[in-house]
Amino acid sequence: MAKFLTNRDENYAQWYNDLVIKAELGENSAVRGCMVIKPYGYAIWENIQRELDKMFKATGHVNAYFPLFIPKSFFSREASHVEGFAKECAVVTHYRLKNDENGKGIVVDPSAKLEEELIIRPTSETIIWNSYKNWIQSYRDLPILINQWANVVRWEMRTRLFLRTTEFLWQEGHTAHATREEAVEETERMINVYADFAENFMAMPVIKGYKSENERFAGALDTYTIEALMQDGKALQAGTSHFLGQNFAKAFDVQFTDRAGKLDYVWATSWGLSTRMIGALIMAHADNHGLVLPPRLAPLQVVIIPIYKNTDQLGKITEKVKNIKTDLEKLGLSVKYDDRENNTPGWKFADYELKGVPVRIAIGPRDLENNTAEIARRDTLRKETIPLKDIATHIPPLLDSIQEGIYMKALQFRTENTFHVDKWDEFLEIIDNPGGFIMAHWDGTSETEGKIKEETKATIRCIPFEGTEEDGRCVYSGRPSKRRVLFARSY
Amino acid sequence: MAKFLTNRDENYAQWYNDLVIKAELGENSAVRGCMVIKPYGYAIWENIQRELDKMFKATGHVNAYFPLFIPKSFFSREASHVEGFAKECAVVTHYRLKNDENGKGIVVDPSAKLEEELIIRPTSETIIWNSYKNWIQSYRDLPILINQWANVVRWEMRTRLFLRTTEFLWQEGHTAHATREEAVEETERMINVYADFAENFMAMPVIKGYKSENERFAGALDTYTIEALMQDGKALQAGTSHFLGQNFAKAFDVQFTDRAGKLDYVWATSWGLSTRMIGALIMAHADNHGLVLPPRLAPLQVVIIPIYKNTDQLGKITEKVKNIKTDLEKLGLSVKYDDRENNTPGWKFADYELKGVPVRIAIGPRDLENNTAEIARRDTLRKETIPLKDIATHIPPLLDSIQEGIYMKALQFRTENTFHVDKWDEFLEIIDNPGGFIMAHWDGTSETEGKIKEETKATIRCIPFEGTEEDGRCVYSGRPSKRRVLFARSY
Repeated sequence: MAKFLTNRDENYAQWYNDLVIKAELGENSAVRGCMVIKPYGYAIWENIQRELDKMFKATGHVNAYFPLFIPKSFFSREASHVEGFAKECAVVTHYRLKNDENGKGIVVDPSAKLEEELIIRPTSETIIWNSYKNWIQSYRDLPILINQWANVVRWEMRTRLFLRTTEFLWQEGHTAHATREEAVEETERMINVYADFAENFMAMPVIKGYKSENERFAGALDTYTIEALMQDGKALQAGTSHFLGQNFAKAFDVQFTDRAGKLDYVWATSWGLSTRMIGALIMAHADNHGLVLPPRLAPLQVVIIPIYKNTDQLGKITEKVKNIKTDLEKLGLSVKYDDRENNTPGWKFADYELKGVPVRIAIGPRDLENNTAEIARRDTLRKETIPLKDIATHIPPLLDSIQEGIYMKALQFRTENTFHVDKWDEFLEIIDNPGGFIMAHWDGTSETEGKIKEETKATIRCIPFEGTEEDGRCVYSGRPSKRRVLFARSY
Repeated sequence: MAKFLTNRDENYAQWYNDLVIKAELGENSAVRGCMVIKPYGYAIWENIQRELDKMFKATGHVNAYFPLFIPKSFFSREASHVEGFAKECAVVTHYRLKNDENGKGIVVDPSAKLEEELIIRPTSETIIWNSYKNWIQSYRDLPILINQWANVVRWEMRTRLFLRTTEFLWQEGHTAHATREEAVEETERMINVYADFAENFMAMPVIKGYKSENERFAGALDTYTIEALMQDGKALQAGTSHFLGQNFAKAFDVQFTDRAGKLDYVWATSWGLSTRMIGALIMAHADNHGLVLPPRLAPLQVVIIPIYKNTDQLGKITEKVKNIKTDLEKLGLSVKYDDRENNTPGWKFADYELKGVPVRIAIGPRDLENNTAEIARRDTLRKETIPLKDIATHIPPLLDSIQEGIYMKALQFRTENTFHVDKWDEFLEIIDNPGGFIMAHWDGTSETEGKIKEETKATIRCIPFEGTEEDGRCVYSGRPSKRRVLFARSY
């Protein structure tokens, strides 16, 4: 066990924080609530971006860029949106600094006050729909399928590295459609894209479902979500897709002439996924040795470490590694040969375990004699010795097996920590220990939802798409219910 | 000629603006000075990013992300930097809005005033060096070679789409080194990367050189620049690389222990290139028909347009196009078959010329009979008819030839519009008409530089790296000079 990490089972929150720092994913900055995403963390984000961007383009979307600033008045146009978003935000009021007349450094120039304050975007529906107004006249201009990669700011009071920061990076899709059906279809398509990405790249099983009215995006008629279970038994919302109806079209007066020549308001969706996913990767898979990165998102997939007593041995190992590295790189893998002399092999082993590199290849004096190498997989920490000549054929299926193994382990954890609960006492007991997902009947009222949250801090994570109807009684009120919903405490 | 474009030779500025709008590259937003980068413009930016990012990584750099906000006090630490950057900037003073008590919508909550104002980054040296302070203890921690893709804000009074906007997208490299020599080497390396990118991808010849002291980046000991000539005879600064000496290390107290065990301040560089390059692409190459995009950056490289009288013909053409498209896509080319029925071939021809698509393939009834296609190249507008079976072998060298042709044309234009001037009268005459690059002797004083600027609006664009020493006299003051420098009016 890496001695410098807090033990995961003793203090999960501290373990998480230690890991972000020690694995050099990121750190806090001098600005309250804003983080620095360090190169290793950012490399994961680049991989997330690359894969998601491919999926967005394969589903017909294009990228564009809209302003960082939103005029204050834009928020007032959509009534529920302003309640949800315009409150805790960064407000630009001035556009100039000047030297203080009393020599006290630089101060805000009071004469450079903006007529209307600008809000740093917490999300871009308003500024984008204000543009769409000019882009859409007829059904021929639809659909518009645009995504934006951007930074957004929400003035959070309690922040945690990656999981909740004042500024964060994300993508936000904003689409415009001629019919309700098309918009609903798009909303579904994108939650499926997110679920596909979560399961196949992040190796993180998710439950797809509807948000309850209370938990919906401010301004949406419906919010779809994917919910994942973290190793401490708390849920993490990993991506949301919103059916916005005609709310924003009405707020920004975006009408179009349909095929029949009739004027109607445009239908909208929006959907987003953020750097929070890096936090999810850690919380879903990492252990007391450090990160466990799924090979498909790992910045470095294979590290090769020489073990030697003298430079003659190092030279011979280096000679052999050269070919192995080339062969693996030809397969499209990311490979590093770490022959730094100032660190011991043991130190390197621990460091790459900390960094979650999926496969480690070690070559020592005996391997040199036998033409073998020791292969260690990060997820199970199991080792095996194989002939050098087999490496190039051995590694790709091994990476697939690690990807699959990480997923299966997370799935098993979720299965073991999902509870069908029918009694309120049992609900109270389980939510405290061990936590996890609770599938329980709910009477469908906001009142009950609110009381459950008040008493347990658990919320309805979603009403799963894949639930079957069954007769039951609300776990809290005892009133009749037709289906179970997913409760959990959450990040 | 596209009738809806203002004639380039009659009103260059209006032609430029028309083109940005009509080719759907971007438009103004509701926020003063901020633009919307539309999908077609953003696709060019994505190609610029992809190529530059590859070059940065090939030279050992990694990406990271630092906060959007910079505490006001950070700017005061580097004396010349604050003068250059902290003046016209967006200032965040509050972090909350609230409902107005008199029902007048939402207002800034006066109780949510920040203790210290935050500046939206106009450039990130200060916030980054504040982080580097914690990352660097010893020479073993160096070099740090980090790049950031980000948005920045400079409160410009006069803005123009892409060329000068309040918010813009860019990359900013920030490196830290153990020695002056290494930092100078890095500064040179990156201006060479920019020049390579400008010439080989943007097809835009550039002159590399030093900025005069007046034109240097605020906080730099030396600024290297690449300068390109636009078709109206004005210069455009296309990328800069700064040797920052130990200025920022001193301002943020970043010291390290060198190999000899001695404490020293760290050496720094920074370098940036922005969405302004999209403006440069237009101004360098476009004509009265529209954009002329270099194939290596064109979002769409080949468009195929069917010309038909009936659906039977369309069906046959579509059948043939299917294979051609697949063949070209296998070569890694971006290809579109535009068989939309609501637009005429003529309309499509004009539209793709406007959009600057490098190659157009048209297939009509006669081509169907002869198994041929008409190939038109956007740069020269020349057409030729070739057998269908030759298309896949014909197009890649044609794209290379277009890339080369665009570059050679721009180079010839620059050669014809670069003037060696020795007399002040001649300087005055040429700078007004035709404009262009003026190579002239300068006495090396800021005073003379200032007067020339005052009288002609021309500035020293750079002191070219490749100048040869020669005895001469300053074109303005008549004082002795050892080399010519590059003057021009500029964007």
